[in-house]
Amino acid sequence: MKLLRVGPTGAERPAALDGAGTLRDLSGLVADIDGTVLADAAALARIREALADGALPALDATGLRVGPPVGAIGKIVCVGLNYRDHAEETGQPVPAEPLVFLKAPDTVVGPQDTVLVPRGSEKTDWEVELAVVIGRTARYLETDEQARAAIAGYTITHDVSERAFMLERGGQWDKGKNCETFNPLGPYLATPDEIPDPQALGLRTWVNGVLRQDGTTADQIFSVAEVVRHLSQFMTLRPGDVVNTGTPAGVANGRPEPKPFLRAGDVVELEVDGLGRQRTELKPA
Amino acid sequence: MKLLRVGPTGAERPAALDGAGTLRDLSGLVADIDGTVLADAAALARIREALADGALPALDATGLRVGPPVGAIGKIVCVGLNYRDHAEETGQPVPAEPLVFLKAPDTVVGPQDTVLVPRGSEKTDWEVELAVVIGRTARYLETDEQARAAIAGYTITHDVSERAFMLERGGQWDKGKNCETFNPLGPYLATPDEIPDPQALGLRTWVNGVLRQDGTTADQIFSVAEVVRHLSQFMTLRPGDVVNTGTPAGVANGRPEPKPFLRAGDVVELEVDGLGRQRTELKPA
Repeated sequence: MKLLRVGPTGAERPAALDGAGTLRDLSGLVADIDGTVLADAAALARIREALADGALPALDATGLRVGPPVGAIGKIVCVGLNYRDHAEETGQPVPAEPLVFLKAPDTVVGPQDTVLVPRGSEKTDWEVELAVVIGRTARYLETDEQARAAIAGYTITHDVSERAFMLERGGQWDKGKNCETFNPLGPYLATPDEIPDPQALGLRTWVNGVLRQDGTTADQIFSVAEVVRHLSQFMTLRPGDVVNTGTPAGVANGRPEPKPFLRAGDVVELEVDGLGRQRTELKPA
Repeated sequence: MKLLRVGPTGAERPAALDGAGTLRDLSGLVADIDGTVLADAAALARIREALADGALPALDATGLRVGPPVGAIGKIVCVGLNYRDHAEETGQPVPAEPLVFLKAPDTVVGPQDTVLVPRGSEKTDWEVELAVVIGRTARYLETDEQARAAIAGYTITHDVSERAFMLERGGQWDKGKNCETFNPLGPYLATPDEIPDPQALGLRTWVNGVLRQDGTTADQIFSVAEVVRHLSQFMTLRPGDVVNTGTPAGVANGRPEPKPFLRAGDVVELEVDGLGRQRTELKPA
C-alpha cells in the first residue's frame, strides 16, 4: 500500500494511492496515518481490503497539498556516514558501528513544501535518504528478522543539513540538523510488500536540474535491518518513529571549492526507487 | 504558580500546588499542562484566579503518582558543558558557544519513577539540571528580554547519560542520552514569578544519600536567557518544548577510578532551589 496525508499543514487527511494511481480518501476508516494506525494490524487490513474493493471515495488531487505521510512523529533518529562513498567524500573513516543523532519531529514538512535557508547560513546542504517508519515497538531486538518485523514502511526523507552549524559551532551535529523545515518527508509511505528489497534502491538528487547524488542502498554500510536492531539497544523505537538511514555521496560539502551550497531560489528534487519524488524550493528564513 | 500532572502514566491530570501546599485539581479548567495551555495567557490567568479564590477541589496526594509536569513535549534541547566546573572535570575546554544536542520526548518519566540501567551499561551517570519550559514560539530572538518572555517556567530535569554509549560508540552524544527513562522531569513547573533569579539557584544530587553534585546556576557559562536566544538562531522553540540547561561538576565520570557509575538498586535524589525534589530508584532494563 501507498499511504499518504493530504491537505493543509496540520489538518491533513489520511489517503492512499490505489493500484491505478487514483487518490482515495481513508478518513472514513482511520483518523490519521500515525503510530496508532501503523501499529494496528486490523486497521491496516481494513484499508487494504477497502482499496481492493474499489469502494473508497476518490479525491481530486488537483492543487491538493501532500503533507508528510506520517503524523504525530515521536522522534526522528538519524544514521550518519552510512554509505561508503559518502564517508569517503567527508574524509571520515568508515564507522565501526552506526553513528547516531536526532532530528526533532517539528522539522518535518511535506515533500513539496518550502525549505527555508536559515538566517546566517552559508552552508545549507542536501542529503537524500531512505526513511524507515516504525510500526511495532522495538526494544533490545536480537535478530534482523525482528527488526524487519518492526518496520511499517518506507518513504523518502531529506536530511537537510547546515554544515557550518553542524561542524563549526560547538561540537555536536544536532545544531545544524534541526533548523525549521529541515526534514521534508514523503510523498507516501510504502508498506514493506511494495519494497521487496530495501537494500537495492537507487537514490537520486537533482539541484536546479543537475544530478548531484546517484547512489544505491546496496552501498549502505549498515543495512536497514541492522540499523533498527542496533538502535534498539540504545533507545526504544516506537510506532510512528522515523529512522533516516543515511545519504550516499554527492553532497555539496563533498565537492571542490567553491562548494555549491543551497541558496534561496534553488530547487531540489529527490527520488528513491519505488517511493516517488520530492520537489522543494528554497526560500530565505 | 506550581503546576503539575498527577495520576497514572499517560493518563495524568493537571493540578497545582496552592499557597498552603495543598494539591488542587485543575481538570475543570484545562485539559492538560502542555504547550497549548502554556501559550494561552487567558487560561493561565484563569488558573491563577481560581487558585487565589481557593475554589478548586483538593486532591488527596496520598499514594498519588506525580508525572512529568508537562505533557505532549515536542522536543528536548540540551546544552552540554554549560558550567565551568563541569567542563573542567570532563577535561574539555570551556565552549565558545552553547554545545547543543537533543533528547527524545519519550525518554521523559516522572520525578519518582524508576530509571532503567540499559542492558550492557557500565557507565550510567547522573546530571542534575535546571530545565526551562517554553511558553511562546522563539525564532531568531534578538535580545535576552525576548528570550525571558518565551519562558513558561522552570523545573528539575535529570539528564541521565550513559558515558560509554555517548563517548565510545560512534561519535555523537545522542546515542548515550536517549535510553528509555533517561529524563526524569519534575515534580512541578514553577512559573517565572516563583523564580525571581534563575541564575542564583543551588542544584544538588545525592546518590544513596551521598552528596555528589552541589552547584549553582550562578556558575553557568551561558545564562538561561542566552541559551534560549542562542538556540532560537538554529531551531524554532515552541510552547511545550523543554531546554535542559546543563549540569554542574560532580558527575560519576568526573571522579577518580573506580568511578561510581549507577547500578540497579541505587537511589538518586535531586534538588534545585525553589523547584522541589526528585527521588528515583535504578532498576535493570
